[in-house]
Amino acid sequence: MESGVRDERHDRSGPQGALRCEGMRARVPASAANLGPGFDTLALALGLYVEVEIEPAPSLVIAAEGEGADLPADASHLAARVAREVIGHDRLAIRVRSEIPVSRGLGSSAALAVATAAAAGVDDPLELATRFEGHPDNAAASVMGGLVTATMVDGRPVATSLWVDPDLAFVVLVPDRKLSTADARSALAEDVSRADAVFNLGRLGWLIAALGDGDFLVPEVTADRLHQEQRTPLFPESRPLLDRLVEAGAGAACWSGAGPTLLGIVVGHDKAERVRHAGELAMAELGVEGDARVLEADTGGLQVE
Amino acid sequence: MESGVRDERHDRSGPQGALRCEGMRARVPASAANLGPGFDTLALALGLYVEVEIEPAPSLVIAAEGEGADLPADASHLAARVAREVIGHDRLAIRVRSEIPVSRGLGSSAALAVATAAAAGVDDPLELATRFEGHPDNAAASVMGGLVTATMVDGRPVATSLWVDPDLAFVVLVPDRKLSTADARSALAEDVSRADAVFNLGRLGWLIAALGDGDFLVPEVTADRLHQEQRTPLFPESRPLLDRLVEAGAGAACWSGAGPTLLGIVVGHDKAERVRHAGELAMAELGVEGDARVLEADTGGLQVE
Repeated sequence: MESGVRDERHDRSGPQGALRCEGMRARVPASAANLGPGFDTLALALGLYVEVEIEPAPSLVIAAEGEGADLPADASHLAARVAREVIGHDRLAIRVRSEIPVSRGLGSSAALAVATAAAAGVDDPLELATRFEGHPDNAAASVMGGLVTATMVDGRPVATSLWVDPDLAFVVLVPDRKLSTADARSALAEDVSRADAVFNLGRLGWLIAALGDGDFLVPEVTADRLHQEQRTPLFPESRPLLDRLVEAGAGAACWSGAGPTLLGIVVGHDKAERVRHAGELAMAELGVEGDARVLEADTGGLQVE
Repeated sequence: MESGVRDERHDRSGPQGALRCEGMRARVPASAANLGPGFDTLALALGLYVEVEIEPAPSLVIAAEGEGADLPADASHLAARVAREVIGHDRLAIRVRSEIPVSRGLGSSAALAVATAAAAGVDDPLELATRFEGHPDNAAASVMGGLVTATMVDGRPVATSLWVDPDLAFVVLVPDRKLSTADARSALAEDVSRADAVFNLGRLGWLIAALGDGDFLVPEVTADRLHQEQRTPLFPESRPLLDRLVEAGAGAACWSGAGPTLLGIVVGHDKAERVRHAGELAMAELGVEGDARVLEADTGGLQVE
């Protein structure tokens, strides 16, 4: 690459012409969006990571390890599409190492888009990832870490950090089955009652208070009327699994993003393993293959080196 | 009253039979609800007060001073109805002194209901006032003070305090015209689009962050799609007045409750008078009779003596 393309690289509106610097590496956390009432606007970064490294190459080479390594390593790969959007071509060697299960509701595509955009040298990885995702919540958590509220203003994402009680731990139940965001979205109606909209507003304010201070955490804070109920037929076991997380000691439980991953929010790190174990047993009893893990909130967000 | 009715007085579900103690006095702040996106769920207590004192009497006597003193002082008066609900009869002398303009969107009825219920000795003034109001937001701010998020769980109100940046000051433009909550509600449709519901969720999270830290305050945080736009035809001057508050230095501006009072949120107490003055001028230019005042957030909520 030549320094002569420098100006183009600062134009956010289109391809940036070249890698900002060779061998840049970006590391980005997974995220749990929605968290019950905060549909498409609230997300929490979680301690599972995807790392992307990009170098110039004669033609596109994608080397993927870990989660998502089975996806076609060609120009259709999300990392290739994002890199091409940023740089203007895909004569690149892209290395992806991911711990984030794909199509499980843990924001793997948003995290990969953020990491790739950052490794490609984009100025505003949140804006770019939001364009690919269609909503800013997961991407905002991946960029900023912690708990974020995200919304669109004049077509651009705006995200703000919210306080997370450091005593909170998170248990994720990650079924082996995939649930595509597109399928999950098609389960939703275009209109909702005003009462349901107000219900979610009331629970969202309460949830934000409870994530900031675990003393306020009760199962009702994650109640939702805009998406969880509508998506339950796609994953009928979700309801007993959520109940079991709460019975085992989670302060509240909800779908993570569009699912099928379920999230238990636990006050006290010492209680998390007990909740995880109960979730694992419940999955086995219900015949749901998958993993149950304890995760911490990620507080660092996007890291570029 | 006799101590023999004590047990009945502890029954929250019905009339409590007698005044808990003679001459109890309760003082309660006004409130601004909704604050843009937080329709029916978010409210802020403001430093205007209603005080209610109740004593036994041969028959109902209501002595009202200040705002609302022109309302019929008979059994239809909200204070009489609330007291009767709590005590089981209205052989009472009720003194009401109010600074809160009536039917202006400053929560005067919720504040009066809370103050009367508390002066009558009810255990849970929030629950009782919510029953009279139909929604818990104003009543919760009047009981708890500060910024609250309120919602209904199994038919009962639940409210949680949220942090308010102490640097915030509030300018209210209080038109002389009344706008009844019933009229304001009839302007609203039963259904809303999912996109509008999500819009409000995103602004609500952002607004909560901005009220907690004025550094985040920008005009977009109070944007709303569930009620303000729909109610604007009831008060067409509201739009230029809100714009003028922001042009004069308010960080954001919105309707207070169902209006017609408009609220400017100002970062820095030293800037509030300038915003107030600009609001006053704008009201005069637009031919809107009324007052412009600077108010502080109330942090004490319900006070009983």
